[in-house]
Amino acid sequence: MTPPFPPATYARRREALARDVGTGLIVLTGHGESPMDGPHNPFPFRQDPTFLYALGLDAPDLVATVDADDGRTVLYGREPSLDDVVWTGPQPSLAERAASAGVAHTAPLADLPDALAAARRGGRPVHTLPAYRAETGRDLRQWLGLSTAPAPSEALVQAVVALREVKAPEEVAEIEDALDLSAEMHRAAFRATRPGRLERDVLSEAEAVMRVRGRRFSFPPICTVHGETLHNHDASGRLRNGDLLLHDSGTTSPGHYASDVTRTAPVSGRFSERQRALYDLVLAAQTDALDALAPGTRFLDVHRTACRTLAAGLRDLGLLRGDPEEAVAAGAHALFFPCGTGHFVGLEAHDMEALGEDRVGYDASVRRSDQFGLRSLRLGRGLRPGHVVAVEPGLYFIPALIDRWRAERRHEAFVDYDAVGAYRDAAGIRIEDVALVTDDGHRVRGPPIPKTAADVERAVAEADR
Amino acid sequence: MTPPFPPATYARRREALARDVGTGLIVLTGHGESPMDGPHNPFPFRQDPTFLYALGLDAPDLVATVDADDGRTVLYGREPSLDDVVWTGPQPSLAERAASAGVAHTAPLADLPDALAAARRGGRPVHTLPAYRAETGRDLRQWLGLSTAPAPSEALVQAVVALREVKAPEEVAEIEDALDLSAEMHRAAFRATRPGRLERDVLSEAEAVMRVRGRRFSFPPICTVHGETLHNHDASGRLRNGDLLLHDSGTTSPGHYASDVTRTAPVSGRFSERQRALYDLVLAAQTDALDALAPGTRFLDVHRTACRTLAAGLRDLGLLRGDPEEAVAAGAHALFFPCGTGHFVGLEAHDMEALGEDRVGYDASVRRSDQFGLRSLRLGRGLRPGHVVAVEPGLYFIPALIDRWRAERRHEAFVDYDAVGAYRDAAGIRIEDVALVTDDGHRVRGPPIPKTAADVERAVAEADR
Repeated sequence: MTPPFPPATYARRREALARDVGTGLIVLTGHGESPMDGPHNPFPFRQDPTFLYALGLDAPDLVATVDADDGRTVLYGREPSLDDVVWTGPQPSLAERAASAGVAHTAPLADLPDALAAARRGGRPVHTLPAYRAETGRDLRQWLGLSTAPAPSEALVQAVVALREVKAPEEVAEIEDALDLSAEMHRAAFRATRPGRLERDVLSEAEAVMRVRGRRFSFPPICTVHGETLHNHDASGRLRNGDLLLHDSGTTSPGHYASDVTRTAPVSGRFSERQRALYDLVLAAQTDALDALAPGTRFLDVHRTACRTLAAGLRDLGLLRGDPEEAVAAGAHALFFPCGTGHFVGLEAHDMEALGEDRVGYDASVRRSDQFGLRSLRLGRGLRPGHVVAVEPGLYFIPALIDRWRAERRHEAFVDYDAVGAYRDAAGIRIEDVALVTDDGHRVRGPPIPKTAADVERAVAEADR
Repeated sequence: MTPPFPPATYARRREALARDVGTGLIVLTGHGESPMDGPHNPFPFRQDPTFLYALGLDAPDLVATVDADDGRTVLYGREPSLDDVVWTGPQPSLAERAASAGVAHTAPLADLPDALAAARRGGRPVHTLPAYRAETGRDLRQWLGLSTAPAPSEALVQAVVALREVKAPEEVAEIEDALDLSAEMHRAAFRATRPGRLERDVLSEAEAVMRVRGRRFSFPPICTVHGETLHNHDASGRLRNGDLLLHDSGTTSPGHYASDVTRTAPVSGRFSERQRALYDLVLAAQTDALDALAPGTRFLDVHRTACRTLAAGLRDLGLLRGDPEEAVAAGAHALFFPCGTGHFVGLEAHDMEALGEDRVGYDASVRRSDQFGLRSLRLGRGLRPGHVVAVEPGLYFIPALIDRWRAERRHEAFVDYDAVGAYRDAAGIRIEDVALVTDDGHRVRGPPIPKTAADVERAVAEADR
């Protein structure tokens, strides 16, 4: 596959990377195939996102070095053999691949260890990224002749984050492309939502919309009437009147950028009174969080905004008591919202997570909290124009968590456990959109997808019944 | 998920394993999650097939030891935490998981290194399987305190192969269950085959049949008008009148057994005269190969049977000349059939391939050939009742291979390159079914799927046009 952007784009990105890192040899490891249940039965190939960012080459077993001192990039790989052609079809040469990424120099992968050894002999730093796949760790260890995988280069990680966190217009366009498809997928899911069907029937309708475009999920999708389980990938349950169906999925653009959108809909086509109150509260929290997005604002404060709106609403419903601000500061709201309000979106649905959540979402000015709930916030630091974030507050009624807190009498001053008891089966509600931080605020990206309670009800009620 | 078979089945399998291995401590490593593009964005979980065979537990981060001397099995793992419940829902305890697999003893994963060290201190062999995932190699290395992953235990590999290669009736029933679904998928694909659509439109129809059952592909599916590329996973091409669509896919049973079925159909609903001749030839080769399946027969000879039928037919068509038997012995037929006739089918589509193709498909009496084509035969050794095999001969017209051989004047005595020139665009035809070796021959398993040229034409012609 040809890279999604012109060769000069990748050359420019690598130049910026070299400049930011300053000196030494940067090693960018592409992925190999990932074995499923045997060495030759792989999962669908997924390239390393930073390799995609810097080279755009979507093929296995490639490594690039970027010399931070002279800016020279070398693409290491293997020439296609006749066997490759017989088994996997006509392939470009290594030089052709390199040229499509704006790279002039190629070498056999077998030459890489010598190049790394030469750099180290010359006293030059060799910069590598975190090896989140064991294969990468093993390869780096062997190439560098080390007994354990090398420690990641903080200079390289910070340079990659600084580049990837700010999305260029062509990157935003890719995310919007994925969001277009997400909108179609959610509309297909609404149309498929009705009592008696299985969760996976609905998911399958959304998936078909994506498959015929040759796209794939950007993360394991969620389509469940048990949305209170935050990452519930089981979709075998049956939809019944009275259930809420939470559908959180994302797809990919042709250039491998991700979308990530959640909607929650009543299976019957009508929210109950209680569901409607909870739904409107989550929507208010999402609206307030989106409105809080602005350059200079810390995402931690966007999260707190969502939490405060939720806490105030939960007090009005009688589930919390006391001052909502104090309840949030103490962490009492986390009984109903034990996770974070959002994350970066880009070449990964949780963008740059492969580099380490703390390195990406926090910095010296904002440290991750260890308070339950808040400690799951993936992104805390200050926003900049060009940041693309998912904003996804929710309300979750998790029986095991309610029971544990009640038994521990946790946050008794704020939580009315008798009132909460009546909500044990209220399941989960989440509303998620992707927004671009602009010079003066934010813009939600992608076409509108039914989101107000009335619009969601209409979308489901108009379904094929 | 509960194991597909009763606890006693797994206890019996482990007893047999312990008996076959004789002495020492057997380590069966279950899989962890396999990271896609970040440590917390995994591919769909796929358990190690031998772990599934011996324990049936479809959950990550479990390891079992089986003491070959006293037969005792210990399941190592982690108790679910409250965080696990919040993020992934209610989970069984480790002891509950163990009980469902007929295992009485459990321990924290952190205790495993000590158990392994104790065995080694006592001078007992520690038996491990090939670490085809890098994670497994890394973990074994760390647990055993080694600098490289341990060499696989040949005694354990042979014991596992001896057990897994002969399918019990309940295993055949699982494969048949997957084949039932494959039949539905192929019928859906036939119905969807028509000019103007994309390959992935057809594949998506087959996939939807599978997804609503909660099943998945047992290997990356193939659905292409360029069937001459043996493992062509690109499905972005457009179907045109005159094309042949090759569809090779497999799905899984509830107990994770695989199916693997190929059909090739004319997009127009009618084979051309030339296509019909080639199709009938592949069908004759498949029929002859199936008829050759019998206990005591080497699969190498089943393969040769298919090759001889193909070579004789290619001579009749004027593409080969001379004695077909001699052409096959020389390897000239491999220009059109550069791969093998089949493989075992079981918990993997290429069953037990994770243990090493040569260890599984060959033995002291049948060594793998290094002749082009024949060297790609995955299975060569003698058949036994209870073996389940895929039989999949084909004819492939690969321009790059034709050009190379012609330039090298390879097998000129047998190949009429001028005649072959007219077939450069004939693409690829494969027909594949799964058969059980019985006491006196074979039985093709699964419901019939249109296979004669006339039946295939009818299935496509009756499609939604």
